[in-house]
Amino acid sequence: MKILVLNAGSSSIKYQVFGMEDQQVLVGGLLDRIGEAGSEMASHDEALARIILHLQAAGITDIDAIGHRVVHGGEQFKQPALIDAAVVDAIRAMIPLAPLHNPANLAGIEVAQRLFPGIPQVAVFDTAFHQTMPPVAFRYAVPVELYREHKVRRYGFHGTSHHYVAQQAAAYLQRELADLNLITLHLGNGCSATAIARGKSVDTSMGMTPMEGLVMGTRCGDIDPALHFYLQRETGLSPDAVESLFNKQSGLKGLCGVGDMREVQALADTGDTDAQLAEAMFAYRVKKYIGAYSAVLGQVDAVIFTGGIGEHSARIRAQVCANLQVFGVYPDLAKNAVHTAGIMAFQQETATLKLLVIPTNEELEIARSTAQQLFLRRS
Amino acid sequence: MKILVLNAGSSSIKYQVFGMEDQQVLVGGLLDRIGEAGSEMASHDEALARIILHLQAAGITDIDAIGHRVVHGGEQFKQPALIDAAVVDAIRAMIPLAPLHNPANLAGIEVAQRLFPGIPQVAVFDTAFHQTMPPVAFRYAVPVELYREHKVRRYGFHGTSHHYVAQQAAAYLQRELADLNLITLHLGNGCSATAIARGKSVDTSMGMTPMEGLVMGTRCGDIDPALHFYLQRETGLSPDAVESLFNKQSGLKGLCGVGDMREVQALADTGDTDAQLAEAMFAYRVKKYIGAYSAVLGQVDAVIFTGGIGEHSARIRAQVCANLQVFGVYPDLAKNAVHTAGIMAFQQETATLKLLVIPTNEELEIARSTAQQLFLRRS
Ligand SMILES: Nc1ncnc2c1ncn2[C@@H]1O[C@H](COP(=O)(O)OP(=O)(O)O)[C@@H](O)[C@H]1O
Ligand SMILES: Nc1ncnc2c1ncn2[C@@H]1O[C@H](COP(=O)(O)OP(=O)(O)O)[C@@H](O)[C@H]1O
Repeated sequence: MKILVLNAGSSSIKYQVFGMEDQQVLVGGLLDRIGEAGSEMASHDEALARIILHLQAAGITDIDAIGHRVVHGGEQFKQPALIDAAVVDAIRAMIPLAPLHNPANLAGIEVAQRLFPGIPQVAVFDTAFHQTMPPVAFRYAVPVELYREHKVRRYGFHGTSHHYVAQQAAAYLQRELADLNLITLHLGNGCSATAIARGKSVDTSMGMTPMEGLVMGTRCGDIDPALHFYLQRETGLSPDAVESLFNKQSGLKGLCGVGDMREVQALADTGDTDAQLAEAMFAYRVKKYIGAYSAVLGQVDAVIFTGGIGEHSARIRAQVCANLQVFGVYPDLAKNAVHTAGIMAFQQETATLKLLVIPTNEELEIARSTAQQLFLRRS
Repeated sequence: MKILVLNAGSSSIKYQVFGMEDQQVLVGGLLDRIGEAGSEMASHDEALARIILHLQAAGITDIDAIGHRVVHGGEQFKQPALIDAAVVDAIRAMIPLAPLHNPANLAGIEVAQRLFPGIPQVAVFDTAFHQTMPPVAFRYAVPVELYREHKVRRYGFHGTSHHYVAQQAAAYLQRELADLNLITLHLGNGCSATAIARGKSVDTSMGMTPMEGLVMGTRCGDIDPALHFYLQRETGLSPDAVESLFNKQSGLKGLCGVGDMREVQALADTGDTDAQLAEAMFAYRVKKYIGAYSAVLGQVDAVIFTGGIGEHSARIRAQVCANLQVFGVYPDLAKNAVHTAGIMAFQQETATLKLLVIPTNEELEIARSTAQQLFLRRS
């Protein structure tokens, strides 16, 4: 079985084809600058037509199903969904919750329906894994009407990644996921932490939007809710300007001028105190979430690092794990420093709480979820 | 020595006179509705003149010094300050940071200078105790210019209360405060948690303003920073209306209609599910801060409950302390349920981490700080 995974952004489409027998990527790539001036592709239609040519060139003409990454599934989608008209309408209805992402994801679905008529398509939602959170975790302390009438609540994102690494951890530890309490740390350009109790997400650091929680490449994460009002009064910035400031000019970039952790660390090593603070704050905030989620879980079997920073920066992992003995966190710094391609454990021999590095693979998880939906439909 | 403590709000003045020999209140009271239609007092001047009459009626004519509660001391005031023209100017300069509070505090100071000429006056700042926080804790991940040019950072509040109960804890435990790691929970109408390392505040849940952190009576505490923009788009509310919503219509009140914890609990006991959620969320968020601050501190000697809820609600204390064994939190529920007027410990016999209820007394702390400034000046 061959599954095409599509991740459509406003001006880009990422694609991968998986052969599901051995779960390997047969072909993949990224088309970007769609619709921009001077680009060869004026629309998502043209981009997908080009992808089809790529597939044909690679000898792939027998796609069995298509899996789409969809950012926001609201409260409705607790699982991946086989796409029909009702699902498309529901994704459209959720545009106010994800005004940048859902329209692009939808464009990808509609183009794929036209260019791959009759091929089953599945939507896999970034929010779905977190739909098991209880109200104490997902509600905000704002007027209840905002929840009931305007859907204001914590949804959480990166769910596909958190779920994938949790499953990988269970396989690696030879335990049932349903028996494990985990803290998963997805640390990439966007960052989020999730508390997983007996295999289910019970709290996560991103909220109603991906702006809440950890310090990220360019997003602010947790701040005082009154900062907006102060800034508008003091600087005269419009709400739109403040939103863009918090999304694109904040995080690591706001603190020290660069948003890429490798650049932050390089700058810190030259003695730049702003970069040193940015790196230290990044790790400090992760530690605070580990503490908070330990309180939520009561007992933790493993802390899992994934995403570009989580997988590749031994230095960040060491800072995050420092001085957390009270939680049972005992890193072996020599093991932590060894770079491996696959799964790696770096707790000390005698520690019961496992510290794991697990490469994420959201595309593979989307492909698996898509295949599973096909089986469910057939059976 | 007699010290008059004044806490001036926009339409109220609270006062207490302490005899410092035995640190007892000689007389005290609250004048409110100042300047409101139909009130007998048109101004803070008239209110303070009336307070002077109260003091005379109680036979007190020999005030040695006046201590003022001042909400915002910015980065400048790390200690209480003997008030002179420069201190008054500095408090005025900080009005943008505390537009509701500092003007009223300042009015109290200026009136007291007129009506008590020649009597030394001391400003005691809610923010001062938290000035020992390191940058990783006090900075936000927003553009660095906002800190350097617009003073955007975490300041923290309730400092007088956190400091007072920390000192009380040290005395009770017969330890040096400088040797103790504490988590202090001030749970009243406003709520905040503080991590105290070796006697000094190193992190606290209120931020640039008192809106951040725990769920409060009517304030939202931690929310997604993008919620503002969504609300403005979805509901058309102005920034001012959103600010007032988050300050006055949120927290417990937003969740279930009432902001007073006794009323929330009474409603919860009738089976009201909104009130049940409000109470549970309140405790859940406190637990998360205990976890986060345990990660910050590494090792914790005591968790301290104060403020109206912290001192009087055994039920909230029990919920907060449940399932935190991993942190060394072992409440003795029978001890917890006994109401005492003074300091009370309720950890189990064998537990090393102490759980303490300590009545706060911000006025006494202000009186002590005021007396101390006088000694410093004389010596
Ligand atoms: N060896 C490394 N050391 C530190 N940071 C790294 C390293 N490799 C990648 N990163 C960081 O990972 C981040 C990107 O993570 P990634 O998961 O690829 O991004 P995205 O969230 O966009 O998928 C960048 O901040 C990058 O600097
Ligand atoms: N016995 C009690 N049980 C539960 N809550 C209580 C109890 N006594 C007082 N409270 C709560 O304490 C809060 C007021 O705290 P307090 O510290 O007096 O307020 P402030 O922050 O204005 O100084 C209210 O929510 C009140 O319901």
